[in-house]
Amino acid sequence: MNHPDTKITLAQFAEISEQRLPFAALMGLKLQSVSADCAVMKAEYRDAFLRPGGTIAGPVMMGLADAAMYALVLANIGPVELAVTTSLNINFLRKPAPGDVIGRATRLKFGKRLAIGEISLFSETAPDDIVAHATATYSIPPSVN
Amino acid sequence: MNHPDTKITLAQFAEISEQRLPFAALMGLKLQSVSADCAVMKAEYRDAFLRPGGTIAGPVMMGLADAAMYALVLANIGPVELAVTTSLNINFLRKPAPGDVIGRATRLKFGKRLAIGEISLFSETAPDDIVAHATATYSIPPSVN
Amino acid sequence: MNHPDTKITLAQFAEISEQRLPFAALMGLKLQSVSADCAVMKAEYRDAFLRPGGTIAGPVMMGLADAAMYALVLANIGPVELAVTTSLNINFLRKPAPGDVIGRATRLKFGKRLAIGEISLFSETAPDDIVAHATATYSIPPSVN
Amino acid sequence: MNHPDTKITLAQFAEISEQRLPFAALMGLKLQSVSADCAVMKAEYRDAFLRPGGTIAGPVMMGLADAAMYALVLANIGPVELAVTTSLNINFLRKPAPGDVIGRATRLKFGKRLAIGEISLFSETAPDDIVAHATATYSIPPSVN
Repeated sequence: MNHPDTKITLAQFAEISEQRLPFAALMGLKLQSVSADCAVMKAEYRDAFLRPGGTIAGPVMMGLADAAMYALVLANIGPVELAVTTSLNINFLRKPAPGDVIGRATRLKFGKRLAIGEISLFSETAPDDIVAHATATYSIPPSVN
Repeated sequence: MNHPDTKITLAQFAEISEQRLPFAALMGLKLQSVSADCAVMKAEYRDAFLRPGGTIAGPVMMGLADAAMYALVLANIGPVELAVTTSLNINFLRKPAPGDVIGRATRLKFGKRLAIGEISLFSETAPDDIVAHATATYSIPPSVN
Repeated sequence: MNHPDTKITLAQFAEISEQRLPFAALMGLKLQSVSADCAVMKAEYRDAFLRPGGTIAGPVMMGLADAAMYALVLANIGPVELAVTTSLNINFLRKPAPGDVIGRATRLKFGKRLAIGEISLFSETAPDDIVAHATATYSIPPSVN
Repeated sequence: MNHPDTKITLAQFAEISEQRLPFAALMGLKLQSVSADCAVMKAEYRDAFLRPGGTIAGPVMMGLADAAMYALVLANIGPVELAVTTSLNINFLRKPAPGDVIGRATRLKFGKRLAIGEISLFSETAPDDIVAHATATYSIPPSVN
């Protein structure tokens, strides 16, 4: 769902993902909704997500968290190529069973030079329990300001 | 290169990766050397690593850091299935040009319940400059102790 | 305010702080309310909080975040001496003007071995804007389980 | 010890600490040596450092890590008032016995807008074992560039 207060649409983000972010395709990432305050991204389950123990591998969750935050940043500054992650911190809280994973990025602060957000991850197999929590910082290129 | 002080060999880790960690294959991960003190992992470059701006995507570096730490943990506790990441923090320092990326994990502390290490990432295109730095904590299952 | 679902009271925490946590006194820390889900702690302003630029120093905010999380942990496990921080990550979002700072710790996950929470910090001078955000992990001693 | 490649001297940092950083005095912080590559800071032991269990409280170590990084930043940019911490991540590795604590900050990357370093903490009671490890990011004010 597109919100009026976003500088990027779902269609634009899908196009960027397909053409410029091959990793997003490998991970089955699909942006579900986006506004200046919140971006919701899904990683569609595939067997390649599994790790020993039969749960979803950490890199899938880290990639999903980073991509959800990227969508939130672009919703705020528009489709700017050089917004890049400067740091990401993640706590893995529960081992998700095989299934889609949802990442919801929300703003902590958007400044001129840095955008900081938090990302909560949920498994569609047990949607009431958060499976991982991340915070991420993106650097906003000077050209935006 | 295998070291005498490791509880897992390069061949054992390769087998675990192939059979149980499909993401490692997607990311072209190859363990180069491992001991109880240090694990060196390579992510062999492929075009799928790229992100807008022509540099290596963050999730590749996060996955490499996590996998290098996983190898270091297994070198210390043996091929235990349920050693899992509990947290990971990464700072992205430079934008690596297209090329192989190397992750070197070293011990900060290995306790009975938690193993903590730091991982330095380098690009083979400019090997003198660190491109990212991570710290990661793994939980050691009680069965090991 | 004490909640029925806490294993520590405000009075008990105040006693621990006075007798065993001299740093809490130096920082003017006062627990405002506590339950198994949320702990609210105040750092009462004193000039010693200032740093160059006339804002509150980072260590005050880190100490407040850590102490609020400590109260939340004790609310869940009781007044256990050896619950200790294993990691803390903090993002400083705004520079708080001189004044009391409030830290609100909430649960992300409480397991047998690790308790993970997030802590949002606010300044009483501008209570609508979060000034810092932290996540922290505490290790639960085996004796509790 | 002052190094030729520093933009701040030990005496200048001591003056800033005394006049502008009252927390540094509360924590007994003394800068031991500084260069553009490395800053070594000591927290001189006092009973106020203790926490339940008879070990050094986490906020002392967080404050020491932040201050050592601050000295490293000023060594690189000079005595600029508004260099501020944007994030800090710390892993507590061992419980230090009562005694002085030493923090050694080294560069990971100094860019135009962000300075990133890592800080290793040691106890003088057992100097061979790292007691905590932190990474910190400082924001460099535009006026410096």
